[in-house]
Amino acid sequence: MARQGLLIVNTGDGKGKTTAALGLAFRALGHGLRVCIIQFIKGKWNYGELKAAKRFEDLLEVHTLGAGFTWESEDLERDARVAREAWDFAKCTIGEARHDLVILDELTYLIEYSMVDEAEVVAVLTARPAAMHTVVTGRNASPGLIEAADLVTDMQSVKHPFDEGLKAQRGIEY
Amino acid sequence: MARQGLLIVNTGDGKGKTTAALGLAFRALGHGLRVCIIQFIKGKWNYGELKAAKRFEDLLEVHTLGAGFTWESEDLERDARVAREAWDFAKCTIGEARHDLVILDELTYLIEYSMVDEAEVVAVLTARPAAMHTVVTGRNASPGLIEAADLVTDMQSVKHPFDEGLKAQRGIEY
Repeated sequence: MARQGLLIVNTGDGKGKTTAALGLAFRALGHGLRVCIIQFIKGKWNYGELKAAKRFEDLLEVHTLGAGFTWESEDLERDARVAREAWDFAKCTIGEARHDLVILDELTYLIEYSMVDEAEVVAVLTARPAAMHTVVTGRNASPGLIEAADLVTDMQSVKHPFDEGLKAQRGIEY
Repeated sequence: MARQGLLIVNTGDGKGKTTAALGLAFRALGHGLRVCIIQFIKGKWNYGELKAAKRFEDLLEVHTLGAGFTWESEDLERDARVAREAWDFAKCTIGEARHDLVILDELTYLIEYSMVDEAEVVAVLTARPAAMHTVVTGRNASPGLIEAADLVTDMQSVKHPFDEGLKAQRGIEY
């Protein structure tokens, strides 16, 4: 029976968008599926993931390609170029069809900041190999992306410890 | 510097509650933290997790203790007894303080179906070792649990493939 790949979007202002994608990766790796994670925003919170990924070197690739957070940047032109190069890499990776699950972490920001074109993203995702699952994470998923997706979850913050001044916790937040 | 454990609740009707908890486990394991996952509802969708968990046998325990879904049950008395035994196991595990992260998957159902007392759950979680992170997942998290939590995320379904008749996908849904 043919397996039909899903396009999954995890959006919303709350925690858990990237974390749920990681959980999907964990589950998929358990099934022996080949997983690729592409991080479009180079954050500070990926040490845990990268270390855990080493236990799955036979099945899992992780690429951290983007620049830092755009609102911290001093060179937006450079950031936009890096973002487009990262997206080009993602396009190639999807086209190569070497993975069963491709996670495009924080891709929504590239659309939101007009670094990549939404129509192109939707076209590439729609034309992906039929069996490939894809997860896109990030706030403010655009309408066209939501329209193209099979499964969209909105993660909403009900209560967040940073509101109360707690610091980010090693192993939990990063 | 003392690490302060967080009480995290993933609730809501959407996907991603258990999956985000798995992602946290993955990240924590990457940091070498000791993780315990206790599943209070014995579902059909945990093959991937269990297989992936084998790569972390040095750090990760998984216990599937509950009965099946209550609405499928033919013996509610037995289910309630199994649920209480599972909760007693969780209490002991928390008290032993052998783990840095304890995930109580679908615990909210036990409260919702009055199999365990909310006040007791809140008391046990509040009295847990100071450094221990705890994640509770499940729909309809009760007010007292939310009040006690540091971080609460509501996962809301925007679009779900089952609405469109797609079947559950190996490696994604289970």
